[in-house]
Amino acid sequence: MRWLAKPAYSRLQVDERRRQLLELGTDLFASHSYDELSMARIAREAGISKALLYHYFPSKRELFVATLQQSAAEVESLTEPDPELPPLEALSVSLDAFLGWIEEHPVAYGKLMESSHQPEVRDLVADIRDRTSERILGGVAPDGAPPKLRAAVTGWLWLMDGVILDWLAHRDVPRAELRELLLGALAGVVMASGEGQALTG
Amino acid sequence: MRWLAKPAYSRLQVDERRRQLLELGTDLFASHSYDELSMARIAREAGISKALLYHYFPSKRELFVATLQQSAAEVESLTEPDPELPPLEALSVSLDAFLGWIEEHPVAYGKLMESSHQPEVRDLVADIRDRTSERILGGVAPDGAPPKLRAAVTGWLWLMDGVILDWLAHRDVPRAELRELLLGALAGVVMASGEGQALTG
Repeated sequence: MRWLAKPAYSRLQVDERRRQLLELGTDLFASHSYDELSMARIAREAGISKALLYHYFPSKRELFVATLQQSAAEVESLTEPDPELPPLEALSVSLDAFLGWIEEHPVAYGKLMESSHQPEVRDLVADIRDRTSERILGGVAPDGAPPKLRAAVTGWLWLMDGVILDWLAHRDVPRAELRELLLGALAGVVMASGEGQALTG
Repeated sequence: MRWLAKPAYSRLQVDERRRQLLELGTDLFASHSYDELSMARIAREAGISKALLYHYFPSKRELFVATLQQSAAEVESLTEPDPELPPLEALSVSLDAFLGWIEEHPVAYGKLMESSHQPEVRDLVADIRDRTSERILGGVAPDGAPPKLRAAVTGWLWLMDGVILDWLAHRDVPRAELRELLLGALAGVVMASGEGQALTG
């Protein structure tokens, strides 16, 4: 990529352009189906040539995956647990931030779940679940999780996706009540795994 | 389909042939990836001409979906709740039958979850979840489920898929314990929805 080897101000422009394209891509993929969008259309909306767009993203798939990865990174930093708080309280705060992000980006979340047949998206979703599971298990069972606790937390992450999709479809539960439902469900699921002492300390 | 309009014994042969092809298809799709299998290969394994196979199933996709539908129907009849039992006990028996079926067909279940990007499969999975959810809600809230209870049961059905995939990947929890984990999780999730009286009557 010799074209990147330019003075620093140019490198900044490149980063900035990439950021803008990702932002535009996020908006476009949220409001259109994947098949509906072409690279030509995206380039037109961005006011750049198709060639330049391909310079930044070698394919529509790569642009799409990059927008998802950016959203995932945004969510991950938003929901980073506060190490100053007790684990359950930190989880409650993180969960609230997550639900807040989804309220602001309902279509993006739905698309992510819908697109999980694309291998890169499936890997991304699996990766997010794995890291969230590690976060939670690290909080409740720092010395290693017994199989049933691991299964319970994995199941709870699936439950969370199911409950959130139900929430987005019906919109008949206030966000704070949904957060309490999810936290209560985690407690219930962990109790059911026989590892309830992990939660109460 | 004039060729079907033949004497009754022939109709039976047709049904029997179709049943055999579905059985063979189920085995083949369980042991090979979808892309790996061709209609030519399936016809060869069945010992019939490709033309005859296409007579029964107009495309590989339709054969694949038919095998899934047959498995789904098999599971549905296996897990039909016993109306003589109290709802929770009936659920426990159904769940045990479901886990037993999965133990016998681990690959089929994994394939089903993996293939859920195919619209027909996604519809099938959604349909199974909807009907299972109706079954459960009909048992615990026959007069209509409040939103949080509906969300909780939906979430639990997702949890079940996540827990079962984790179980198949690790195989480190005995089936009876898994069943108890799942039943306990349902109780915990329903309690978390604030509708715990639905379970205790």
